[in-house]
Amino acid sequence: MEDKEIEGWDYRAKPSSLSRRFEFSSYAQTRDFLDRLDQLSQQTGLYPHSTNFGTGYVNLTIDLDVDAEAYRAFAVQVGQLYRA
Amino acid sequence: MEDKEIEGWDYRAKPSSLSRRFEFSSYAQTRDFLDRLDQLSQQTGLYPHSTNFGTGYVNLTIDLDVDAEAYRAFAVQVGQLYRA
Repeated sequence: MEDKEIEGWDYRAKPSSLSRRFEFSSYAQTRDFLDRLDQLSQQTGLYPHSTNFGTGYVNLTIDLDVDAEAYRAFAVQVGQLYRA
Repeated sequence: MEDKEIEGWDYRAKPSSLSRRFEFSSYAQTRDFLDRLDQLSQQTGLYPHSTNFGTGYVNLTIDLDVDAEAYRAFAVQVGQLYRA
């Protein structure tokens, strides 16, 4: 694993970003994850570049072009929301 | 305008769907729209096929393959949330 990679996330170099698909068995679970992600974003001031969701999944892309270390830490925290 | 089209939405025939981009000047406004869209979905039991958002935009795709009339009415209601 390269230095810039984070377990569970796909790293892309150009543009520098992390992406990940989270799957859920119900819309209620999907929505709960989105709500907790929103709370985390409001706490940290960091937001995914894009969030794509349907009733049973959330695909996130997090840009690392600016403030990469903060966004890498944010990605780790998002992964912890999923396990919680 | 064809019979299947709805003002403000892009209609695609295969698969039959409507898509639209909504733009906002702040994340707070984006989030408010997403919250009202969620309330509408919970009231109607109808959900977009996919929702893609960043801090200042929301792109929606609504499938019309099943229950097309109900989803067309849902699209009209979503448009009203944006103007409200």
